[in-house]
Amino acid sequence: MHTNPTPTDDSRGAVTDSELIIQALAAGRNKRVRKLMTRLHPAKIAALIERLDDERRDALWQQVAPERETAILHHLRPGLRERLRRQAAEDAANEPREPQHDEPKGHRGKAKQNANHLQDVRDALADGKLKRVGKLLQQTHPAKVAGLLEALPPEERTVVWSMVETERAGKVLTYLHEDVCASLARDLDPDELVASVQTLELDDLVDLIQDLPHELGAQLRAAAGASRRKQLDELLSYPEDSAGGLMNADVIEVRAKLRIGTVMRYLRLLETLPPQTDMLMVVDRQGIYQGVLRLSALVTTDFSARVSDVMHTDVRPIPVQTPDVDVARQFEDHDLLSAPVIDDEGRLLGRITVDDVVDLIREDSERAVMNMAGLDQEADMFAPVLTSSRRRAVWLGINLATAFLAAWVIGLFQATLQQVVALAVLMPIVASMGGIAGSQTLTLVIRGLALGQIQPGNVRLLLTRELGISALNGVLWAIVIALLAVVWFDSWTLGIILGAAILINLLSAAFAGLSIPLLLHRAGIDPALAGSVVLTTVTDVVGFFAFLGLATLWLV
Amino acid sequence: MHTNPTPTDDSRGAVTDSELIIQALAAGRNKRVRKLMTRLHPAKIAALIERLDDERRDALWQQVAPERETAILHHLRPGLRERLRRQAAEDAANEPREPQHDEPKGHRGKAKQNANHLQDVRDALADGKLKRVGKLLQQTHPAKVAGLLEALPPEERTVVWSMVETERAGKVLTYLHEDVCASLARDLDPDELVASVQTLELDDLVDLIQDLPHELGAQLRAAAGASRRKQLDELLSYPEDSAGGLMNADVIEVRAKLRIGTVMRYLRLLETLPPQTDMLMVVDRQGIYQGVLRLSALVTTDFSARVSDVMHTDVRPIPVQTPDVDVARQFEDHDLLSAPVIDDEGRLLGRITVDDVVDLIREDSERAVMNMAGLDQEADMFAPVLTSSRRRAVWLGINLATAFLAAWVIGLFQATLQQVVALAVLMPIVASMGGIAGSQTLTLVIRGLALGQIQPGNVRLLLTRELGISALNGVLWAIVIALLAVVWFDSWTLGIILGAAILINLLSAAFAGLSIPLLLHRAGIDPALAGSVVLTTVTDVVGFFAFLGLATLWLV
Repeated sequence: MHTNPTPTDDSRGAVTDSELIIQALAAGRNKRVRKLMTRLHPAKIAALIERLDDERRDALWQQVAPERETAILHHLRPGLRERLRRQAAEDAANEPREPQHDEPKGHRGKAKQNANHLQDVRDALADGKLKRVGKLLQQTHPAKVAGLLEALPPEERTVVWSMVETERAGKVLTYLHEDVCASLARDLDPDELVASVQTLELDDLVDLIQDLPHELGAQLRAAAGASRRKQLDELLSYPEDSAGGLMNADVIEVRAKLRIGTVMRYLRLLETLPPQTDMLMVVDRQGIYQGVLRLSALVTTDFSARVSDVMHTDVRPIPVQTPDVDVARQFEDHDLLSAPVIDDEGRLLGRITVDDVVDLIREDSERAVMNMAGLDQEADMFAPVLTSSRRRAVWLGINLATAFLAAWVIGLFQATLQQVVALAVLMPIVASMGGIAGSQTLTLVIRGLALGQIQPGNVRLLLTRELGISALNGVLWAIVIALLAVVWFDSWTLGIILGAAILINLLSAAFAGLSIPLLLHRAGIDPALAGSVVLTTVTDVVGFFAFLGLATLWLV
Repeated sequence: MHTNPTPTDDSRGAVTDSELIIQALAAGRNKRVRKLMTRLHPAKIAALIERLDDERRDALWQQVAPERETAILHHLRPGLRERLRRQAAEDAANEPREPQHDEPKGHRGKAKQNANHLQDVRDALADGKLKRVGKLLQQTHPAKVAGLLEALPPEERTVVWSMVETERAGKVLTYLHEDVCASLARDLDPDELVASVQTLELDDLVDLIQDLPHELGAQLRAAAGASRRKQLDELLSYPEDSAGGLMNADVIEVRAKLRIGTVMRYLRLLETLPPQTDMLMVVDRQGIYQGVLRLSALVTTDFSARVSDVMHTDVRPIPVQTPDVDVARQFEDHDLLSAPVIDDEGRLLGRITVDDVVDLIREDSERAVMNMAGLDQEADMFAPVLTSSRRRAVWLGINLATAFLAAWVIGLFQATLQQVVALAVLMPIVASMGGIAGSQTLTLVIRGLALGQIQPGNVRLLLTRELGISALNGVLWAIVIALLAVVWFDSWTLGIILGAAILINLLSAAFAGLSIPLLLHRAGIDPALAGSVVLTTVTDVVGFFAFLGLATLWLV
């Protein structure tokens, strides 16, 4: 398993374990501290504790496993023993208020629990009570531990991460967003990282390897046993965003001609089924998919019946190249819990389970919203300021280019503005109304495209309708705004020009809101990402041009 | 079942079925035409066909059930018989190219299939081949029929809807968005509506009743049998957005002391289990929830074991008042397929299945994106223009108020603008950069709030970080923009003023982007809905004020 020897292993001859512990403690590598201590006799640990200054002694004591405390105290000199014993008693008295977070007992709103959790952990951190942090983490579901880590600023995050048990660290990694996952995986020693993923399901491991930087992923791959590595390589060969990337290889296959009783005996020999198993897969001698045997059919059928009598052949297998969004749609439409995945020849390759589809849907929707603000990669709320600044700067730069385009249009009409300064005051209203109206159409069209409801056949109809809506709202708001302008600047001409510009901009906004996403979609660009920048540029340019152009014609 | 007699039933004495068929045909009520025809002898239908003019004859022929064609043709006069026979043969030859859309055969990308589907249906409609439309619909999953109906403009939608078989219409309704669902349900005769929901699962029926206008929902409730109505009323008593609203009552309960063999015998008596059953619920004599018996445990356990030996007590039951977003988060975190729901006393009330959670997550994410554009209720792409205009006008009006606020700020500096018209040209750049930077922070914070990762404890840290990012980007872009302005207008003072305004606005944007969603959240307003309007107002006002204010101080 330890294919990548750690420095520890190499240098054990030269440096004592005690010195290694002191080094690891200074580096905040608490996981390694705990691991190193398991090798030492309590007496040696006691001797080490006696050698340390107060601060480091307390820090080390926080890493001692509860079951070894008594043995170590026994070897200490009396004064120190008394002090640490008192401290241990204090820690025990200060137990977290809700000891069983994941048990059926505490029925409470989750957000509130989460809040308490974060506060509990931060309080314990502030007091240096790492033992308590460790205990809190152990009682928390890995998904929540992940959420908690993401809610912590970097320094505290590193400390809390060092208190996550190695066996649970792998599962926690799978729940983290890509950025955070990579940085925390780097915090682990290579052998810790390998040890942490031992119990992961294969599909989770595949996802993790794909999320991690290449060299870390390669370490995990290399550390897997031969048979697991073979399965791993096969799953890794499919694109991440395809059915193959969502698939797991843990199917249970049966033959159609078997009797139900035989299947049941076979299952009892297996003792446990893979998680989220709601059906067995029926295949023929060549491994060609034939249908599914639902567990619910299995338990309601007589033992003498054959699999072929009760298997369902109406479950459509998913070809391995199917894009993941189509897989998600299929799960939604057919209320699936799991689905078979096949290759081009119809051979069964694996299965997709609904929990991965749920994660996919959630990630997609999160990405859509983030993309609209140009935050495509900013999953970590506490990523380094410089990294985040650089990423966001790109979006600001793109926006700047479009803003200068709008400014250039205004620049064409400087002479007019000089004469009628009220135009400068009212300009933003035209642009803003156009932007809002356009983004309404844009959002509707992006959604329609995502749902596959916009087709060449109905685009013209949709355009008519959107133009109709814009015309109605254009007339309404043109009149309102014109009247307001007349009252404000006491000029009917100005009011009429403003109203006309609003109407023109709302109509062009409807046209742009419809055509921009369609063009982007055809060009293979995600309309949710680029749509709103392009749209605002159009509505700004058209708005300013219409308003100032009309003014130049009539007012000057 | 027919508690609401249709006009048909009332007037059967006075008007012949043939006349009713002609009336229904003229009204486009094809479902009723087909129903009426089932009552008539083929000879009578033949006589009716002979009486009609060409157009109506073809229309009626499209509603004849395929299995009755031969019998009816037999009774027709020879010339007509030949013509209709030829037409039937033609229709058969023109069969849709992919006859088995929902069978395992056609492994193809779904979006493409969908497109073909829509086109096939529209082509058939254009040719008046309603029979083919009906056949296409029958081969399509109800979820896809729903998608197809939503993609059609109103007139075609009505015709296609009239060709959906009554038994499948209820299921289709459950997949439609609220608006479309209500309007299509209204298109049905009351007895058709009642008949269409007969086979729906209880939780789907509950959702449908909640989606429909009150009077239609009441009809469905009244039409249910006494025992079904009792269950229905109980489910309807919970808020739609709570665990109770997601719950279904179709649990299978067992006692902990039973032997596995006994449970298996009991299940075989049931013959089928409710869909999405992955576990049985273990309750005591008082109905108090005790744990779950997974089917996967059931099939891998010896018959002589007791339920209590293999049941899982670590599945946390969901209290019935839990908000639905928390339910969704729990399903995601724990990879659940279903979960028990309990009341305050711990009594088992029902279960929630993952398919409803998937729908919930999808709807929530869709709503979030739509809300950001002020389209909260516009689920129907082809809703009447007037309705949509009215809904969108509200959002435009709100935006107008904020736009006027910005205009008012500019108005304060008219004298300055008069002197330096270049200010008017550059103004939009300041506002636009602030808006983009602010919306980046805003989006990040809204997401953090949704994930429960923003807590009183880390807000200050987040603010420091966001201000840091804004400061870096502010300095960078202030310099770039200032230099561009210097080149354009050949004025260092103007450049410096512009740069300073950009920096100020980006810093205030970070502050506003963080504080606005937090304040809205605390006030109980969805930050995703109102956040961006409020934010833009702030960045516009601050941007204009800073830029024009500085200019007034230094330039004038």
